[in-house]
Amino acid sequence: MLLRHIKLILSYDGTDFLGWQVQPTGPTIQGVLATAIGRITGENVLPQGSGRTDAGVHALGQVASFATTSPIPASNLVDALNDVLPVAIRVLAASEVPAEFHPRKSARAKTYRYRIFRGGICSPFLARYVWHYPYPLNEEAICCAAGRVVGKHDFTSFAAVDSERKQSDEPRSNVRTIFSSQCWHQEDELVYEVCGSGFLHHMVRNLVGTFILVGKETLKPQDIGRILEARNRSASGATAPAQGLFLVNVEY
Amino acid sequence: MLLRHIKLILSYDGTDFLGWQVQPTGPTIQGVLATAIGRITGENVLPQGSGRTDAGVHALGQVASFATTSPIPASNLVDALNDVLPVAIRVLAASEVPAEFHPRKSARAKTYRYRIFRGGICSPFLARYVWHYPYPLNEEAICCAAGRVVGKHDFTSFAAVDSERKQSDEPRSNVRTIFSSQCWHQEDELVYEVCGSGFLHHMVRNLVGTFILVGKETLKPQDIGRILEARNRSASGATAPAQGLFLVNVEY
Repeated sequence: MLLRHIKLILSYDGTDFLGWQVQPTGPTIQGVLATAIGRITGENVLPQGSGRTDAGVHALGQVASFATTSPIPASNLVDALNDVLPVAIRVLAASEVPAEFHPRKSARAKTYRYRIFRGGICSPFLARYVWHYPYPLNEEAICCAAGRVVGKHDFTSFAAVDSERKQSDEPRSNVRTIFSSQCWHQEDELVYEVCGSGFLHHMVRNLVGTFILVGKETLKPQDIGRILEARNRSASGATAPAQGLFLVNVEY
Repeated sequence: MLLRHIKLILSYDGTDFLGWQVQPTGPTIQGVLATAIGRITGENVLPQGSGRTDAGVHALGQVASFATTSPIPASNLVDALNDVLPVAIRVLAASEVPAEFHPRKSARAKTYRYRIFRGGICSPFLARYVWHYPYPLNEEAICCAAGRVVGKHDFTSFAAVDSERKQSDEPRSNVRTIFSSQCWHQEDELVYEVCGSGFLHHMVRNLVGTFILVGKETLKPQDIGRILEARNRSASGATAPAQGLFLVNVEY
């Protein structure tokens, strides 16, 4: 039987999941997706993602792939999977890819967005998707600090200390290249968007937590360089809450 | 001690609640709000609402009131209550009102909105707030049908058969006046908005379920008059799902 490789683009509301990776303790995106694929193809597969998203983190365009002998055309898989998936997870697109395609290893760039709600009262319809931070912030200083991580750097200072959770085939280095890193004010939100070659565990949330210290003027934008050089997690700010973070897309 | 009467304007995401009214079986808006008021004022009160919303129905501007001897200024109650309420329920405003004010009996008009998502794939970030109906619909016929309920009518055909759940002081008549009733297409949604003197249990959802039959051309717009005259619930369509419905505001 012919083994076909399928690439999926997924969007999900991460609020009610324990993150991407299968866990024995509760529902995960990967686990729920595996069940759905099993129901459609009759095959027991574990889809691979472009990377793990943590509990509560959302995706507008996560990429996953799996191999199947099922003859179902890729174009029909979108509706078939959406019929059996919970509404909090949607398959946006499905296509056939070469066997060499790997959602993480083949990725050239990933974009994340972080939403900070600045208004006094956060609508119940936004609360799952933003960090509500109504306190004073020097947003200009934050935008300046955001620009300072562009380029190739060792991001150890912004990596979760548990970053030993690397997969055996993952590069051991904490060096990543950031192609763009910017923030802007949009309606009542401060939005931060960062595109890079890859991201360490908690890296975007730790960047945001550090930018908040710049916004509070505890740090200056130019301290970002010093923090990067320290290569020490204790040099940077607290991890921003999961619910403001979105994986926007993955480029190949 | 001086008894003060407080009016609250509330917004809530109804997804995870068993509706407005306190229930022994799970969390309700009224119950959670009563707990929050108790924590702030130290008093055991049951806030009264402008009307019940069903499980899964949302509010942009529900109105509730309660009496208290607490000296906390109304303006401080907004932040105080929001500090202890879950993020799915927000107090948007609080003000002192005369003892005669009753959120339901004093209401002159209420506006409801119903959102139908017409696209093929419904974003996980919308799914809690719309009815996903991707099938063909004659939307022009629906908009025409919507206009036909304007005026003073007996809405028995659109009332839940359980409408015996009236409160002892509720008018027994099923006559209500609809001031406006219109629908429009906005981005990928068909939006229906209706403003009236009051609404029977399930009335908006039964209207929407009937408009869908007009959209499917099972009924014609002019059948609405005949259905109203029938004064029989079996003359109208199925009850549309709760999650597309929003109580927009209440006027006094």
